[in-house]
Amino acid sequence: MTQAVGPTRAYRRLSVEERRSQLLDAALNLFAHRAPEEVSLDDVAEAAGVSRPLVYRYFPGGKQQLYEAALRTAADELEQCFAEPQEGSLTQRLGRALDRYLAFVDEHDTGFSALLQGGSVIETSRTSAIVDGVRRAAAEHILAHMELPGPPGPRLRMTVRMWITSVEAASLIWLDEDKQPPLDELREWLVEQFIAHITATAGRDPQTAAMVRHALALETPEGPVGKLVRRVLPVAAEAVHLL
Amino acid sequence: MTQAVGPTRAYRRLSVEERRSQLLDAALNLFAHRAPEEVSLDDVAEAAGVSRPLVYRYFPGGKQQLYEAALRTAADELEQCFAEPQEGSLTQRLGRALDRYLAFVDEHDTGFSALLQGGSVIETSRTSAIVDGVRRAAAEHILAHMELPGPPGPRLRMTVRMWITSVEAASLIWLDEDKQPPLDELREWLVEQFIAHITATAGRDPQTAAMVRHALALETPEGPVGKLVRRVLPVAAEAVHLL
Repeated sequence: MTQAVGPTRAYRRLSVEERRSQLLDAALNLFAHRAPEEVSLDDVAEAAGVSRPLVYRYFPGGKQQLYEAALRTAADELEQCFAEPQEGSLTQRLGRALDRYLAFVDEHDTGFSALLQGGSVIETSRTSAIVDGVRRAAAEHILAHMELPGPPGPRLRMTVRMWITSVEAASLIWLDEDKQPPLDELREWLVEQFIAHITATAGRDPQTAAMVRHALALETPEGPVGKLVRRVLPVAAEAVHLL
Repeated sequence: MTQAVGPTRAYRRLSVEERRSQLLDAALNLFAHRAPEEVSLDDVAEAAGVSRPLVYRYFPGGKQQLYEAALRTAADELEQCFAEPQEGSLTQRLGRALDRYLAFVDEHDTGFSALLQGGSVIETSRTSAIVDGVRRAAAEHILAHMELPGPPGPRLRMTVRMWITSVEAASLIWLDEDKQPPLDELREWLVEQFIAHITATAGRDPQTAAMVRHALALETPEGPVGKLVRRVLPVAAEAVHLL
């Protein structure tokens, strides 16, 4: 091929770290849009413009090792989604975190589904542990955003983890349903579900009730809680016979 | 052994269906409390009081086939949890369904975790499909309990599936945390989370709003919605500046 000079030069110039990172990028991009069993090492080599033996030199464990390394990279990115600066109201912070999370889901659609739906031929307890690590990290970030005076109790922790699971479920359904509703709407709805989750728990758990009271002080009528309250009020009014 | 006569007689008396069902019961009981990789065919044979070759005669595919058959039996039982008579308020029906579901979780603790947490050496796309079938069946049952005038729209479906996922997450955390809080409290809390989920969605979706209005008419002050409303009201009152 006439273009052989280009790749060869690039090949010589990259450092070990750069080459590794280039191979991972190529792999992640392939795993994002195809199921793991449909990606071969030849595909990765071709996408990165290198030879198959070179891929093996960097990942002697073959596809399983490459998949795990790509997954580790993706997991780091996902964990960072919830590492939001401690500024603004709780719902604003969650909204920004969800923006990044849902952008990731949108960008890595097939890979995201394959990863979470399990049953993949390549799934192992190690990849499950990586996914579980992302969930735990996200929960810790969200609990930190609550700025609690003491350590979070079991009910609050369980509530946050339940919400994270339902965000995952919603993401999978969203991918399954041709990405409907639009991302902005999905994000707002998921924030509303968070508000609903913690409000229900606040009825049972004094720590959650105190946190909700504290968080409400930072909310404005134009914010997510204000909008939700006004939209839900006409329906809730029908519960007046229960007081 | 002096007791050899007993099992031999039982052996002769059982029909093919009875024997199969006896082996499945023994397997399910073992898989309930140990991870699949820690159960051998010898264990199943011993628990059922039969020989290993007999187990193979009924399940020539060995442990994988036995595991799948046991899983299919468990899945049928789980699906039946939500097949509640169409009587009483929606929250009463859900409460009764959750009673059965959580009793199953309590009874099959280790097996339930192994099944849902994935990463098991024995997991295959077929076992994942069985688990997913249970989720879909539960969602259909719950939607049927809503007695909608037309087919359920995407938002209501997504809300129900999000709640089912968060019930699973709560069940796993509950098992992980030495079955705390007590079952009754967990059940009530999960019903409250359901009310919260659909109320938040009612703010965005006219079909859900109409269903909630209809469901509220059947609620009493002593029921789950009445209790939740009265407990949450003092916290919600702090949102008055958002109106």
